[in-house]
Amino acid sequence: MDILKRAKVLESEGRSICHLEIGEPGQPPAPGVIDAVAKALPSPQGYTNAKGLLELRRRLSRYYAEQHGVDVDPDLIMATMGSSSGFILAFHAAFRPGAKIAITRPGYPAYVNTLAGLGFGVVEIPVHAAHGWHLTGAEIAAAHARQPFEGLLFASPANPTGASVDRAGMADIVETCARLGVTFISDEIYHGLDYRGPSVSALELTRDAIVINSFSKYYCMTGWRIGWMVLPEALIRRAEILQQNLFISAPTLSQIAATAALDERDYSEAQKASYAQNRAVLSGGLRELGFDLPSPGDGAFYAYAGISRFSNDSLAFCETMLERAGVASAPGVDFDRVDGNGFIRFSYAGTRQSIEEGLERLRVFLAAGG
Amino acid sequence: MDILKRAKVLESEGRSICHLEIGEPGQPPAPGVIDAVAKALPSPQGYTNAKGLLELRRRLSRYYAEQHGVDVDPDLIMATMGSSSGFILAFHAAFRPGAKIAITRPGYPAYVNTLAGLGFGVVEIPVHAAHGWHLTGAEIAAAHARQPFEGLLFASPANPTGASVDRAGMADIVETCARLGVTFISDEIYHGLDYRGPSVSALELTRDAIVINSFSKYYCMTGWRIGWMVLPEALIRRAEILQQNLFISAPTLSQIAATAALDERDYSEAQKASYAQNRAVLSGGLRELGFDLPSPGDGAFYAYAGISRFSNDSLAFCETMLERAGVASAPGVDFDRVDGNGFIRFSYAGTRQSIEEGLERLRVFLAAGG
Repeated sequence: MDILKRAKVLESEGRSICHLEIGEPGQPPAPGVIDAVAKALPSPQGYTNAKGLLELRRRLSRYYAEQHGVDVDPDLIMATMGSSSGFILAFHAAFRPGAKIAITRPGYPAYVNTLAGLGFGVVEIPVHAAHGWHLTGAEIAAAHARQPFEGLLFASPANPTGASVDRAGMADIVETCARLGVTFISDEIYHGLDYRGPSVSALELTRDAIVINSFSKYYCMTGWRIGWMVLPEALIRRAEILQQNLFISAPTLSQIAATAALDERDYSEAQKASYAQNRAVLSGGLRELGFDLPSPGDGAFYAYAGISRFSNDSLAFCETMLERAGVASAPGVDFDRVDGNGFIRFSYAGTRQSIEEGLERLRVFLAAGG
Repeated sequence: MDILKRAKVLESEGRSICHLEIGEPGQPPAPGVIDAVAKALPSPQGYTNAKGLLELRRRLSRYYAEQHGVDVDPDLIMATMGSSSGFILAFHAAFRPGAKIAITRPGYPAYVNTLAGLGFGVVEIPVHAAHGWHLTGAEIAAAHARQPFEGLLFASPANPTGASVDRAGMADIVETCARLGVTFISDEIYHGLDYRGPSVSALELTRDAIVINSFSKYYCMTGWRIGWMVLPEALIRRAEILQQNLFISAPTLSQIAATAALDERDYSEAQKASYAQNRAVLSGGLRELGFDLPSPGDGAFYAYAGISRFSNDSLAFCETMLERAGVASAPGVDFDRVDGNGFIRFSYAGTRQSIEEGLERLRVFLAAGG
């Protein structure tokens, strides 16, 4: 956040900045989405029911049949305000105040902050570059033996590492959670952006997980604040009542937009193809420059690169890189307060040109001694 | 909620229902709002900064100067997802988990449910029809002496009673909270819909209050999920960090719509004029039919009517009225779990015709013995 603010100050002073810190697509949603919203715009947009428009939930049910080969009852689906409100609803529907929830380290910083801000406890399970940042059932069980927790919140693909589980990996996590009596919350907001195979939903393996997803990333709709969750039968009524009271309903126009977006996956696949190119260019370029990046990452649009050759202070390195090279990135300490000083996160959600320009600037910057 | 669901079932069976239960305007936002959104629609709508678009916050600052004669720094204003996320941010920014917050009884049911759902304690302060449902500083102090609380959440105009404080009444509440060391959260979401004089903001009297407002009611934008809060200097940074983590930012198109809406108050005043007519028709009609309604209410678009002449079970009365007369209303027990059986809430946010038709149906229904 400080890097983003400083980057904007520099830009306001006339500096050109390569934005490799921003975790959102630069493109608008598909034209069909814009059309659907333009058509609905003149009508009153009142609250929807708490779960959301039935048309959206039915279309999401069809999405699960088509993409994941699973049958999901539209009554178990709830539209949310981005994934943000989905997390809040999931935590309060599934856990008592003060309950401990496990997350990976490194991980999305809002996880820790949201859990702590809402009065829940956090247990961090470290994952490692040497294992492609993957989380295993054995690691979950070992962490649980050290410090029991009631829930596991896990993202695949993950921010900041881009790590994804395959079907066997997801099955390992799901089975371990079931064995330990741990409620599994599967964060699938980067689904669709897997470069090594289809994204695997927890719903392919269990009906006891809470699944959280969003239209922000794959469908280029961050500012629309629209996502969804799929709940186990035992939790749906409680989640619906929480939604009625905490949020009433998700933004109506965004629900209409989301319904249309599910018919526009060709557009999203075209975006994904450009991220895939960016991923190859960025990961190859970073490795050539001396960053530690054993793998380009499985999914999302992030490269979590080791900087041990250059610095042991990720924030200072990001700041210097921004000031001297005009390249903005996110310091690893934002994602990992223990080992994050050895890493920075680059996003490749931007244009090919911005990535090539960023790499060239980094080359000059590092050649001059960093 | 059960009444609303049952009303929809009856409608799907071909029954005609007068919807006097729904607390939202039936009109779309002003044409200028639609135009502003249509213009922005083709561009990417990314996240805004956590506080929201500077243009919106500056325009809100001007709104406070023009409507309330007070100077509010745009940096103390934050755009929220309706008032809903504003309440969550206010509670977590101002209080420790488990803190007790006082509210009036009757009151908006989501207050109790949100506070309880988030792990806060609730202290209910009864207000009375005989005193126009007004809350006084003396009542706050007496309640605090019986059972101390750290915060007071208070709405003017209020749901379900329509009660509003004047400037002296607001000063009494503000001063009492200051004296008791109680953090005051002023729910001003029905502001603009005062029929007896200008709406009074807590900001006219203090900078220590948290003010929550919304574009839902006065600006006819419920489904847009856009509101704002004004925070004391001591809390703004904490609230901003919570927003970044819990919600990221409010919906971007809705922020653009909201900025435009503030220039379209003439349109909102025209809506208000129709509510004012509805208010006179409904309150007069209800009194003629034998409902207890000492006052038509100061603001919002609700009449909270006593039913002692007809029933001592508000839910049963609402259900029978819906089944036999086709008139939907909200039972008092939804707003007051102690004394609510003596009341039902009618909304006059709908059309004049629906209110006149509803009154005629009630006349026939009551003449037939209820």
